[in-house]
Amino acid sequence: MSASWSCPLPLRDHRRITIGHGGGGLLGADLIEHLFLPAFGEAARDAQPLDAAVLDIDGPVAFTTDSYVVTPLEFPGGSIGELAVNGTVNDLVMAGARPVALSTAFVLEEGLELETLARIATAMGAAATAAGVGLVTGDTKVVDAGRGDGIYITTAGVGSIADGVDVRPARMTPGDRIVLSGPIGLHGMAVLSVREGVAFDTTMQSDTAPLHELVGSVQAAGIDVHTMRDLTRGGMAAGLCELAAQAGVGVVFNQDSVPIPEAVAAACNLFGLDPLEVANEGVFVCVVDGDSADSVVEILHGHQGGHHAAVIGEVTDQHPGIVVQRTRLGANRVIDRPMGEQLPRIC
Amino acid sequence: MSASWSCPLPLRDHRRITIGHGGGGLLGADLIEHLFLPAFGEAARDAQPLDAAVLDIDGPVAFTTDSYVVTPLEFPGGSIGELAVNGTVNDLVMAGARPVALSTAFVLEEGLELETLARIATAMGAAATAAGVGLVTGDTKVVDAGRGDGIYITTAGVGSIADGVDVRPARMTPGDRIVLSGPIGLHGMAVLSVREGVAFDTTMQSDTAPLHELVGSVQAAGIDVHTMRDLTRGGMAAGLCELAAQAGVGVVFNQDSVPIPEAVAAACNLFGLDPLEVANEGVFVCVVDGDSADSVVEILHGHQGGHHAAVIGEVTDQHPGIVVQRTRLGANRVIDRPMGEQLPRIC
Repeated sequence: MSASWSCPLPLRDHRRITIGHGGGGLLGADLIEHLFLPAFGEAARDAQPLDAAVLDIDGPVAFTTDSYVVTPLEFPGGSIGELAVNGTVNDLVMAGARPVALSTAFVLEEGLELETLARIATAMGAAATAAGVGLVTGDTKVVDAGRGDGIYITTAGVGSIADGVDVRPARMTPGDRIVLSGPIGLHGMAVLSVREGVAFDTTMQSDTAPLHELVGSVQAAGIDVHTMRDLTRGGMAAGLCELAAQAGVGVVFNQDSVPIPEAVAAACNLFGLDPLEVANEGVFVCVVDGDSADSVVEILHGHQGGHHAAVIGEVTDQHPGIVVQRTRLGANRVIDRPMGEQLPRIC
Repeated sequence: MSASWSCPLPLRDHRRITIGHGGGGLLGADLIEHLFLPAFGEAARDAQPLDAAVLDIDGPVAFTTDSYVVTPLEFPGGSIGELAVNGTVNDLVMAGARPVALSTAFVLEEGLELETLARIATAMGAAATAAGVGLVTGDTKVVDAGRGDGIYITTAGVGSIADGVDVRPARMTPGDRIVLSGPIGLHGMAVLSVREGVAFDTTMQSDTAPLHELVGSVQAAGIDVHTMRDLTRGGMAAGLCELAAQAGVGVVFNQDSVPIPEAVAAACNLFGLDPLEVANEGVFVCVVDGDSADSVVEILHGHQGGHHAAVIGEVTDQHPGIVVQRTRLGANRVIDRPMGEQLPRIC
């Protein structure tokens, strides 16, 4: 994939990012033409050499953004490139939208190897193609060595919301059941394992993945999703606490129903971390009418990333705004919204 | 304006950004509730505590993004906050769109004073209100001290394109005339003057401003704008060279017609810079039918920022792709597209 960009000549013999690559001149244009466009591949087919892209979108437009500052840039199961595409795609999907297009803005540190940038950009192109979105517009800035950390990426996304789709948290109703799409804790612990140089028995891989197919299959089956949330920074604890607070309802889930991979549990134990608070990048909760929950689980089981989907709990009119975990021993534990982040620079 | 956020208690006694502010937990939520939303003010009235905003947009959607890494964060005439709003607003305006909404993504350096952040955010809110756009969705990440430079901001913007508007460069036609909206070089030299600690006789101020009113007035007069370009990084040289190359036409302009403030000329002389390559943040060129150019100038003269508008040249079928300056002495000088940037970290 990267062979097409690696000829040094069009990049004017630079093997590393220089301040001039961020100047909006010929060097920047070279970077677009000879690195970003070949690396993005098919995903960039609608990109134009203008300052804005023009999109045809039907119906209401969903609009979102996230910056990505993960360290290291590459980790088991992915890189900052996949995160920057999948994370923003998933924010659109969680809003009930069909992702249409992403923008890509890079803040590069002087001295960054072009080869690293090309690898990350290639990963972005592949992730965008897999998620069915175009990379349609972008920007590159360069900061002095020591004023960045290799690559920071900010993506924004726009999507189309179909008629009648309403997934605002306020639709959560007592009696609704909560489906978790997959095992938790993998992304955070995979990044931590390389950052801390710890080798675990089992190789943990980030779960970074787009969620459009899983959610699309549920919607296509005619199931009315009341609300959804992907469990990124702050993990399942943050996601459920936000939903409960925003909807003004209580949430109860069973400790035993939550799939936590053994390697994640062991690593969390070692580091003194709570797996409920560890970031995920390809897992979401979905709140549906009590009668529909089993169908949702069945549908998710048919998809990559959904094999371990499970009903983990329900919405209650008791303790509004509060999330409660029913422990293995039958006790109730109140789950607090995390204060900050156990693992900084995780996405 | 900033009184409403400055109470230290809701910000949990932090006066500086900590890593935890980027963790997606309570600290991050505090920052949104007690700093960003009060500082953004009216501009954030449609923001929701969700990962995506939903917008009603008619017709084709324009979509753009830019990262802002200017140093210093504040300079005569503005700050990174105004730039981050006006720059992205102007990219939409230059695409022929009515700006609707912006996203705001922050990469903050640990240790940044909250007071600085609040000042910048307040400037963003005021700029967004002046430009008539909402700040509807956003993200905040924090990087370790020494891995950033205070504040990097990435904004993305969406806008609505009215029926029949087509401002692609390909519409430039030999015989068209080129109108420049205002004096050039002010933004770059204002930033340079504070960065280098040089005091010039005349205080130079950045020209950062939204261009929606100037362009809107021209369009409202029924004038068919063939294409437009704001003259940011790389200045007028980069803007005209890009247009000529993209349209496959020649461009000629008269040296004497280009308004260059005396202070800019003097400062450029001192530093050995070419004012044609210095960045602007509130100036654009507009290409129209030869018969309409004088009307455009007259309309622009009626607006703040347009008082010095002038016809500077024309489109020709001679030397396609090449920009030529007719010098004061009657000679022709080919203007090259700048290689990088004379002034790094300018926006």
